[in-house]
Amino acid sequence: MAETTDDRLRLLIERIERLEEEKKGIADDLREVYGEAKAVGYDVKIMRQIVRLRKMKADDRREMDMVLETYKSALGID
Amino acid sequence: MAETTDDRLRLLIERIERLEEEKKGIADDLREVYGEAKAVGYDVKIMRQIVRLRKMKADDRREMDMVLETYKSALGID
Repeated sequence: MAETTDDRLRLLIERIERLEEEKKGIADDLREVYGEAKAVGYDVKIMRQIVRLRKMKADDRREMDMVLETYKSALGID
Repeated sequence: MAETTDDRLRLLIERIERLEEEKKGIADDLREVYGEAKAVGYDVKIMRQIVRLRKMKADDRREMDMVLETYKSALGID
């Protein structure tokens, strides 16, 4: 029984480790794509903003813009 | 030319979005494995510590333990 539970724990940990490896691979790929983009002259910070904006629903995006404008005008940022 | 650069930007953004999707999938899988572990009675916090410890070299682990012990004894934690 102790062996069975040890195996179970080990298998769970190994699954986690495999997934963490995959996650690391993807993070590396992402770094590579952003590096490529930067190399051809794109602004990586703005690209990250674009990715974030495209993830949002159009309505949410418009609402965010409106709130942002309100805050900006309240603080005298033009 | 403008179209070519627009395409290039779009393709880069789409690659990023695909990778972000994959990353999300893996994060979901990880959550599932930890959920499974929790359901069978394992302590998720300790499992995360185990994953971290297994990633370290034995030497680094031993050194960390020694430093930790030193700090604990300096602070009267037993």
